[in-house]
Amino acid sequence: MPTLRVALAQVNSTVGDIPGNAAAVRHWTRVAADAGAQLVAFPEMMLTGYPIEDLVFRDSFVRASRAALRTLAADLAADGLADVAVVVGYVDADGPAPTSADAVPGGGRRDASALLFGGGIAATYFKHHLPNYGVFDEDRYFEPGDSLTVVRLGGVDVALTVCEDLWQAGGPFAAARRAGVGLVVNINASPYELNKDDVRLPLVRRRAAEAGATIAYVNTVGGQDELVFDGDSMIVTAQGDLLTRAGQFTTELLVHDLTLPAADAVENEPGPDVPAPEVEERLPEDMAVTRVTVAGELRPLTGGPASGGIAERVTDEAEIWSALTLGLHDYVEKNGFRSVVLGLSGGIDSAVVAAIAVDALGPQRVVGVSMPSGYSSGHSRDDAADLAKRTGLDYRSEPIQPMVDSFLANLSLSGLAVENLQARVRGVILMALSNQEGHLVLTTGNKSELAVGYSTLYGDSVGGFNPLKDVPKTMVWKLARWRNTRADSPIPENSIVKPPSAELRPGQVDSDSLPDYEVLDAILAGYIDGDRGRDDLIAAGHDAALVDRVLRMVDLAEYKRRQSAPGTKISIKAFGRDRRLPITNRFREGV
Amino acid sequence: MPTLRVALAQVNSTVGDIPGNAAAVRHWTRVAADAGAQLVAFPEMMLTGYPIEDLVFRDSFVRASRAALRTLAADLAADGLADVAVVVGYVDADGPAPTSADAVPGGGRRDASALLFGGGIAATYFKHHLPNYGVFDEDRYFEPGDSLTVVRLGGVDVALTVCEDLWQAGGPFAAARRAGVGLVVNINASPYELNKDDVRLPLVRRRAAEAGATIAYVNTVGGQDELVFDGDSMIVTAQGDLLTRAGQFTTELLVHDLTLPAADAVENEPGPDVPAPEVEERLPEDMAVTRVTVAGELRPLTGGPASGGIAERVTDEAEIWSALTLGLHDYVEKNGFRSVVLGLSGGIDSAVVAAIAVDALGPQRVVGVSMPSGYSSGHSRDDAADLAKRTGLDYRSEPIQPMVDSFLANLSLSGLAVENLQARVRGVILMALSNQEGHLVLTTGNKSELAVGYSTLYGDSVGGFNPLKDVPKTMVWKLARWRNTRADSPIPENSIVKPPSAELRPGQVDSDSLPDYEVLDAILAGYIDGDRGRDDLIAAGHDAALVDRVLRMVDLAEYKRRQSAPGTKISIKAFGRDRRLPITNRFREGV
Repeated sequence: MPTLRVALAQVNSTVGDIPGNAAAVRHWTRVAADAGAQLVAFPEMMLTGYPIEDLVFRDSFVRASRAALRTLAADLAADGLADVAVVVGYVDADGPAPTSADAVPGGGRRDASALLFGGGIAATYFKHHLPNYGVFDEDRYFEPGDSLTVVRLGGVDVALTVCEDLWQAGGPFAAARRAGVGLVVNINASPYELNKDDVRLPLVRRRAAEAGATIAYVNTVGGQDELVFDGDSMIVTAQGDLLTRAGQFTTELLVHDLTLPAADAVENEPGPDVPAPEVEERLPEDMAVTRVTVAGELRPLTGGPASGGIAERVTDEAEIWSALTLGLHDYVEKNGFRSVVLGLSGGIDSAVVAAIAVDALGPQRVVGVSMPSGYSSGHSRDDAADLAKRTGLDYRSEPIQPMVDSFLANLSLSGLAVENLQARVRGVILMALSNQEGHLVLTTGNKSELAVGYSTLYGDSVGGFNPLKDVPKTMVWKLARWRNTRADSPIPENSIVKPPSAELRPGQVDSDSLPDYEVLDAILAGYIDGDRGRDDLIAAGHDAALVDRVLRMVDLAEYKRRQSAPGTKISIKAFGRDRRLPITNRFREGV
Repeated sequence: MPTLRVALAQVNSTVGDIPGNAAAVRHWTRVAADAGAQLVAFPEMMLTGYPIEDLVFRDSFVRASRAALRTLAADLAADGLADVAVVVGYVDADGPAPTSADAVPGGGRRDASALLFGGGIAATYFKHHLPNYGVFDEDRYFEPGDSLTVVRLGGVDVALTVCEDLWQAGGPFAAARRAGVGLVVNINASPYELNKDDVRLPLVRRRAAEAGATIAYVNTVGGQDELVFDGDSMIVTAQGDLLTRAGQFTTELLVHDLTLPAADAVENEPGPDVPAPEVEERLPEDMAVTRVTVAGELRPLTGGPASGGIAERVTDEAEIWSALTLGLHDYVEKNGFRSVVLGLSGGIDSAVVAAIAVDALGPQRVVGVSMPSGYSSGHSRDDAADLAKRTGLDYRSEPIQPMVDSFLANLSLSGLAVENLQARVRGVILMALSNQEGHLVLTTGNKSELAVGYSTLYGDSVGGFNPLKDVPKTMVWKLARWRNTRADSPIPENSIVKPPSAELRPGQVDSDSLPDYEVLDAILAGYIDGDRGRDDLIAAGHDAALVDRVLRMVDLAEYKRRQSAPGTKISIKAFGRDRRLPITNRFREGV
């Protein structure tokens, strides 16, 4: 049986930075070739970044993707890598083939995978299953492919598939079994979600059994707006053996030798162990197969054997911490910021955000500002200063009372209006520092607060990125304790143990307004993540009066209304529901 | 041939306010019956409001919709309206039939139409074509229906269809021809877009020809978050004759007598004039037909004849003004605000927003605040005061210099940071008034400014609703001139003719930073609405250097980043891409 040395390039790409992404493919293909790899697989939409959202509707963008693919194939050959097979994701469109002239695409856009070899585009495949749930809107953007591409490579039949193709039974993997392939290359842009790595391996095993073939699964890594991709690339045999697996949130090249059935030796009929499809397969069972044989020989196998090892799984806290630091790091870097600034209250949320920022960027790129008011306790200032000392960040103090007093002298305010005023003066200070010195402002409100509306609009909600936006308060504490088990122990113990308070009036604590966070977070998880209504939550054991109170707070929190003023749509593409663009987007039309 | 008196109820519903929406159906059915109507059609999702977004994933919501439909049928009978056929949109789900016990729905959710008669649910139909483009995401939320429902009513076969079914050839309207129906009732929640009314009539004509039947098209009216529905309900014969048409942006009941072919007399075969489908019809041509005969007689036809008349079309400016006032009115009312507050600079944008607000809510519910700085010109204050006098709104003045000075005394700021500081102090004042007095803050930035980033984050972008969010600057001027042709002439001529300026530094005018708005808006329309890239825009005749400059501004404007801090997603439902809820939502779980 032939042996193929496969490299999975678990690397980072940036939406719209097509030249930079192409350069990364050349770099990592060189590294892989130096390790003797014959086949290198890059993630879904490696060339364009993912998700590109409405950029796909711009013909100039699709043309740029297609042109870059052709250029990349030629550049790889010029780099002396013509005899390495490179699988790479890009955006294609119907119309003239991407190997021909740079014509305007017509018709449907495609989420595509190409196999580059010998200086050209040897084969292409269009993603078949398009996810349209959760963070995915692919039915808006792409036409589904309806045939499987099989490339004969080093005597092995290799099928190309993309991401969601793996998550549904039937379709390409069933077609791969009928086509008798030895290897399926599945390229992904699969976003992180807590414990998703526990789901992926069983899923790849199931699909490998369905295909009766080894699966090489490569996922991208890195942050893009609110998504973070965690890698977790792997190779699994038809029998379900995990041969190698990359870490999460790491850029790495996984190189592994695979002994695979020779193309002509593979059984072409379904075996007895085909699992029943989990979901209804709406497409005809006889998905067409396009067979391609590359012109020329793969570079010979030298050295070795190569084995990628199997990365161990980590705790939930370690996983989340990595997600948050990588997400922040990439948001800052990909958007071209040099530094960040945040308010330090002495409380747990700002302390954890500061620690995340220092881990992501280093202390010299993080500015922390203590902004005490007349209601700030002594320990708040001490705890903020202590955090600054532990982390080494750039620490400043800007007392807010003079500015607050100037508003109070000119306006008649009382109660909640005075509380919010303090938070807003802090917001103005942070934005002034941002404008004056160029920092990105970090917001520090956790998911529990946001859910129940316990924050000041244009006050503590001010900022360009919020690392805790999706982190419940109870998890904030867990993260703090977990992070402090490392030697540098950045978070003051006092910030962890003291009762949380907004300190906007004398003696105020969160428990004046909110239930205990353990109780609150459990109800929020059911209502928000679980879409469970009042009666279901009460049946699950929650106190009825408390459920009513929390659901009412969430329904009235209007977190969306608080953050972005909507306005009546009158045109084809208003800024809102119908115009969806990545925030991080390096695609530039102008020259 | 039988005559049927049909009433189209072009009425407003509120997302989540199921009891209120059901009450509106009873009210308007009573009004229609008093006018002798035998069949009354209400819009798509009348019972739940539209769009409901992620509410559909909550079983408790779907149960509430199904239960309300049953109750409504019984209530109509109790109202003495059992012999009126009522077609109404609601949300259904697979599982036990909605006429049976209140079981938890299983399986797919449905965008449904029901025909109520005799105190019960006589027939249901599930929307077949689900739009998933523009403002629509229905592939996320619903399963498509795959059979047509035909109800024999007063001797006429009547087919039920929903909205998008009308926008695509094939499917239900082709099935309606094969089923030989005399009337198709098409219920809609079709959002307004400039000149969309010019598209609807030809479309209804085409589909009436395809079905070989009269179409009764009813659309909802009213604002829901960023969408505004404009009505434009109509009845068109198979020959393309427009029998009656309602106005736009008006709540009205259109009652019209239709003489229709008797059920047994209709030709069941396709005629020679079937138009070719415009789009590929992926579903089998033999869509099933479910035939229903209602138990009992329709109320007899009395009085008449009834004719609804044909509403005239209006100018673009009149259409947009109606859209903006209705959109604002409903946002304020449906979210329970009593009043609005906005800053009055003396410029055109705030003047037009003030005039819209006064038209929508009346002057006693609008507070205008002049917030002059040291850089504000005398004419700015005069023009703001003049506007207040012309409109009669509640006018105040809050000079900002003392607060600005207190920040400048405590922070080292220069240049842009000082400019933005002034806008932010104004934002803090507006929010303080909002918190103290309960007003909704209106934002006044136009679409052109937003597109190029010419505004201050947390400054003039502060607010809960922005009537001009989707209105280009050149249209703002047109609207002002158009509105001033009415006798009260609310907008000071000086605000219209003076060069636009932010007045954040001495002598500043918009043209320091931006091209002429006529030129800018043309490029923005191509780039934003048209998805046209640089080369296409230059080929269309725009100056190359200017295109580069504008596209760069738009790409860097980061309007989304400026309004809402994103944060890394780690859970199933982060607040962001994967959790989508209406802002205006009256559905309450708590008791």
